[in-house]
Amino acid sequence: MKKFLDQDFLLQTDTAKKLYHEYASDQQIIDYHCHLSPADIAEDRIFNNISEAWLEGDHYKWRAMRANGVDEDFITGGQPAREKFRKWAETVPDTFRNPLFHWTHLELQRYFGITDLLNAESADRIYDQASEMLNTREFSCRSILQKMKVRMVGTTDDPSDNLESHLRLKEDNFSVKVLPTFRPDNLYAVDKPADFNAYINDLSQLVGHPIGTFKELMKAASERIEFFHKAGGRISDHGLEQLHPDLYSLEKADEIIKRVQNGGTASKEQVNIFKMTTLVELSKMYAQKGWTQQFHLGAIRNNNDRMMRKIGADAGLDSIGDFSQITGLAQFLNQLENTDQLAQTIVYNLNPSDNEAMATMVGNFNGGGVPGKMQFGSGWWYLDQKDGMEKQLNALSNMGLLSRFIGMLTDSRSFLSFPRHEYFRRVLCNLIGNDVENGELPNDINWLGQHVENICFNNAHSYLKL
Amino acid sequence: MKKFLDQDFLLQTDTAKKLYHEYASDQQIIDYHCHLSPADIAEDRIFNNISEAWLEGDHYKWRAMRANGVDEDFITGGQPAREKFRKWAETVPDTFRNPLFHWTHLELQRYFGITDLLNAESADRIYDQASEMLNTREFSCRSILQKMKVRMVGTTDDPSDNLESHLRLKEDNFSVKVLPTFRPDNLYAVDKPADFNAYINDLSQLVGHPIGTFKELMKAASERIEFFHKAGGRISDHGLEQLHPDLYSLEKADEIIKRVQNGGTASKEQVNIFKMTTLVELSKMYAQKGWTQQFHLGAIRNNNDRMMRKIGADAGLDSIGDFSQITGLAQFLNQLENTDQLAQTIVYNLNPSDNEAMATMVGNFNGGGVPGKMQFGSGWWYLDQKDGMEKQLNALSNMGLLSRFIGMLTDSRSFLSFPRHEYFRRVLCNLIGNDVENGELPNDINWLGQHVENICFNNAHSYLKL
Amino acid sequence: MKKFLDQDFLLQTDTAKKLYHEYASDQQIIDYHCHLSPADIAEDRIFNNISEAWLEGDHYKWRAMRANGVDEDFITGGQPAREKFRKWAETVPDTFRNPLFHWTHLELQRYFGITDLLNAESADRIYDQASEMLNTREFSCRSILQKMKVRMVGTTDDPSDNLESHLRLKEDNFSVKVLPTFRPDNLYAVDKPADFNAYINDLSQLVGHPIGTFKELMKAASERIEFFHKAGGRISDHGLEQLHPDLYSLEKADEIIKRVQNGGTASKEQVNIFKMTTLVELSKMYAQKGWTQQFHLGAIRNNNDRMMRKIGADAGLDSIGDFSQITGLAQFLNQLENTDQLAQTIVYNLNPSDNEAMATMVGNFNGGGVPGKMQFGSGWWYLDQKDGMEKQLNALSNMGLLSRFIGMLTDSRSFLSFPRHEYFRRVLCNLIGNDVENGELPNDINWLGQHVENICFNNAHSYLKL
Repeated sequence: MKKFLDQDFLLQTDTAKKLYHEYASDQQIIDYHCHLSPADIAEDRIFNNISEAWLEGDHYKWRAMRANGVDEDFITGGQPAREKFRKWAETVPDTFRNPLFHWTHLELQRYFGITDLLNAESADRIYDQASEMLNTREFSCRSILQKMKVRMVGTTDDPSDNLESHLRLKEDNFSVKVLPTFRPDNLYAVDKPADFNAYINDLSQLVGHPIGTFKELMKAASERIEFFHKAGGRISDHGLEQLHPDLYSLEKADEIIKRVQNGGTASKEQVNIFKMTTLVELSKMYAQKGWTQQFHLGAIRNNNDRMMRKIGADAGLDSIGDFSQITGLAQFLNQLENTDQLAQTIVYNLNPSDNEAMATMVGNFNGGGVPGKMQFGSGWWYLDQKDGMEKQLNALSNMGLLSRFIGMLTDSRSFLSFPRHEYFRRVLCNLIGNDVENGELPNDINWLGQHVENICFNNAHSYLKL
Repeated sequence: MKKFLDQDFLLQTDTAKKLYHEYASDQQIIDYHCHLSPADIAEDRIFNNISEAWLEGDHYKWRAMRANGVDEDFITGGQPAREKFRKWAETVPDTFRNPLFHWTHLELQRYFGITDLLNAESADRIYDQASEMLNTREFSCRSILQKMKVRMVGTTDDPSDNLESHLRLKEDNFSVKVLPTFRPDNLYAVDKPADFNAYINDLSQLVGHPIGTFKELMKAASERIEFFHKAGGRISDHGLEQLHPDLYSLEKADEIIKRVQNGGTASKEQVNIFKMTTLVELSKMYAQKGWTQQFHLGAIRNNNDRMMRKIGADAGLDSIGDFSQITGLAQFLNQLENTDQLAQTIVYNLNPSDNEAMATMVGNFNGGGVPGKMQFGSGWWYLDQKDGMEKQLNALSNMGLLSRFIGMLTDSRSFLSFPRHEYFRRVLCNLIGNDVENGELPNDINWLGQHVENICFNNAHSYLKL
Repeated sequence: MKKFLDQDFLLQTDTAKKLYHEYASDQQIIDYHCHLSPADIAEDRIFNNISEAWLEGDHYKWRAMRANGVDEDFITGGQPAREKFRKWAETVPDTFRNPLFHWTHLELQRYFGITDLLNAESADRIYDQASEMLNTREFSCRSILQKMKVRMVGTTDDPSDNLESHLRLKEDNFSVKVLPTFRPDNLYAVDKPADFNAYINDLSQLVGHPIGTFKELMKAASERIEFFHKAGGRISDHGLEQLHPDLYSLEKADEIIKRVQNGGTASKEQVNIFKMTTLVELSKMYAQKGWTQQFHLGAIRNNNDRMMRKIGADAGLDSIGDFSQITGLAQFLNQLENTDQLAQTIVYNLNPSDNEAMATMVGNFNGGGVPGKMQFGSGWWYLDQKDGMEKQLNALSNMGLLSRFIGMLTDSRSFLSFPRHEYFRRVLCNLIGNDVENGELPNDINWLGQHVENICFNNAHSYLKL
């Protein structure tokens, strides 16, 4: 019997252990997509306690507490940090078999050296110990990034962001590259006309020219892309339920922006037309700049209206959708490929049932001599756990080239999430190790170790031109 | 090599064996959803032979025989009981790797102590032995329930049912709670106007007031819910291909019932409007009574018209659908949650591809301090086997809290199906045991044993307020 | 640790080894669906080199090379055979965990006795050795079929084909049965009016009567079916994204053929009407002749327009779709079953997420005393690998009768693909072996061996009435 969460966690074979310890574990981390606060890094924030670092923005934990019958006041409400932590600690034993159980104890070990299990009994002890450590310079945001061997962080930023934190970090010559990601959701959010108009108004002032037409909007977008580019940005990201590229129409998009700016509203179809037309145009700009574009497909967000009215958006009320994805994705990629304007692309999929279809569809657009140009992205959100990772890795292996995979990212809001890279690497090495032990791969540890190093670091490094 | 179907069946590790034998196997059974005949229990029916108990209503076996080339006359036709049993016995060896192979031999062992394999050679011997045992008082329906340590049975009953069997059993102080489940499919079956009108007419006489409007229909429903409640009913159930709650309209529902009662027919859309409006209104009543509501989603029934004309409905001609489920489910739950009228809910899913999406969607509506309020129900129908159970348990574990799961139910028409609880418990303990052996869970047998006991019994017991 | 690709490749248990070596490995091959060239067999083609045999038509390898950054000129372009081979050899190590890695080395072993791994270093050596062997009479197409113990090959042929190669092979009394398969895609391809009209014109001359109405088209089809039947054809095949049988209309089909022949075009709906009406009518003819009909569902073809313009159709730009399949399939099968005109049917599924739904849907139409009449076909195209095969075998086992499965086919364009039957047999024996070792199946090797023999050979032999 293996000990829980020991040095060989998730590694079932000798080959897996060798691959992980000799090739994977020392690799630096390229966290090319996450939601860390660039301001926290720039200001080198120090957390007051573990609740602040762990519970403030973690909707995974919120969901688990709700499912466990914890009162909302202890989740997103006004209870004190220590009380919230106690409720979380009480919940942890009930998360057995959920990734939270692993993540929680992995993070306690890796950051704080705490090997106790978190539960009602250990709650206060662990709260005190972790908070005391956190509340020091050695656990400042910058220190954490360095301690975790992070080489690059890709934050997620609005087109109108002034990127001052990124620029300051560059100026500081901070050893970790903190690069912005262009996330233009607000550029096409005509479903909320008032917010959209206010946003466009601000953007117009920022770029210094009027935005009253779709063409002017694209001009502004192009200028902001240039601004991001100068600040080191080479990646964009987009969250979408599904793609409807057959709706592309420059003319209609122009009508819609004018309509909305004149106080009108956009129908559901118009919202999609505007979104898709904008996306296609932006994607052409990314291609022109040599960027990488990311698409996170398939989430349904903020499903519980009553709770959203109470606690706001993005609060753990989100789900995996079962949208039809493939035909739309094909059309979208094709539209760009047709004119040779398809940038390097990473497509993330939230419903594991779509893994095989997605993996094959992105593969149709490989080419042009770029190895692994089209990436079937790592298990995302709910799939960011052993089962989800294994399914993604197996689908990618069977339908494409695992060897060209750019690997893991945290997609996290928390500075305590970096052990997920370790988690991923263990899962990866374990799959390969099993294949070797079963005679399904040759027992050539150097060759396999090279693949492991590539997937953990080298592929992302060269793909993202770091 | 493990012996076939021995005491450690499906238990691959020592931890699994310990968990099963020390924590799971002795737990009583709460079979909160099945299709047993309450009359059979009330009258304490004794079966004449094994064919009667085993083959009369089991469409799983019918399908297998059809696939094996058995003539329909030996399946649902007029052949004598022994002849039918012989054909089934001949088919059993050809069901290898199908759950029927396991269920068959598990039931022979547990009820009759028969460890021989069933096949053409053993058919007559087993027929005689099992039939002789069955045809005694020790194998009456009530005796079987007691022998199998059943604590509660949730039957499935029409709103117009007088529940006399349930009431008699209550009067008898029968040690097993036999509680009715409100299954109102007929209340909204306007797709068959003649049947619907006749049904409503009878219902009107039963409740003693006219039902000519949707409001009156809901009044009648409310009265029957009250009647079920007094008889101990606390659960409702609904079988649906998919949910279309955006169609909700009290006004249109009223028009539709009038239209149908005036000899008109309902369009496909009107059928769905009526169904969804009724469902939403009923669900509010369940919430008000503190009931639990069940939704079985995704089956396509009676697909083979030719066979249905010959042998009737529900005869093994049913399938897993690939409907879009998630958006409709979200809207439905949201509509109830919006006014805080969402009862405890169990959603069952027939297509395993939807597991992850369903598990995350129900999780959005947890809260209110009820642990495990929203349940992603156990593997159902075709998924009621090892692979289906494992997928459901893993999806639930990864996307929610397994610890709050209310566990297994047979959904069966047969008094010989109770070993499916044993089957489920073995699968559950085995998954947990593997995690422990792999170092993915701490080796704390008492703690894990408590989870096992909860999932096998305690959770259902407290969730259903028994 | 098992050695890579040794005699016990993919066989994890002693039972699996026994089943494979004693029951499976010696079975002859019935390759009832493939795309081998009948002319190559008739002419007994000898390949000049391994590139010709291996790379010329293999879009799996093309995709992998594209994903690996190889220039198209070395894939489908004009580079010399040896250069193309080198690029493929360089790519092979990067296909680790992809089925290509297994297939490649399995084929090198089985055909050429080469146990070296293929890579940049070994490329020239292996090219020379394999090419030298291939370029001899012992490796002619006919010799290969005999060496691989092929008993029957089902080629894929257009209705207008004169089948001269098949007839010549029959005349030659070639020991391997090479039988045509009726693949009528061109009969309903009204989406390309010019091609369709030209095709129908040729067909009209072939059958010697005008084809200006749908009835005349069906008359021609019937005559070609009769012609195929006389040449030994007993199988048809159809490739479709999805089925829309509710569109069936003889009247509209007649209008559409006239419209197209008069220079008109068909709308998307009309294309589907024509396709579905033709399919239903053809299916009735198959039933009448006692044929077996195949449906390959779910592929999206030629997704990358730019590449297709450059290199043509069917060049590795195809994907798994996520179409809604089940309702259409139900209607289609039901329409035929209703009048008792449903032929033996094999349904192949390209999206593994649909496995369970498909397996249950085809099972609704079993009956008529034909064991295994309705087949859920073997893992196809992208699913033709260990994971895909296991999923198909498990879904079939759980939802139907594995014992009646007619097993594997290559679906291949290459004479070097026959080891995929070996691959399948190993996977099959391994699954059964694991079940035995786990105590989930009785350890009765003769009984299980009989099942294995049936699935590898006997079932297909009797199902296809060979």
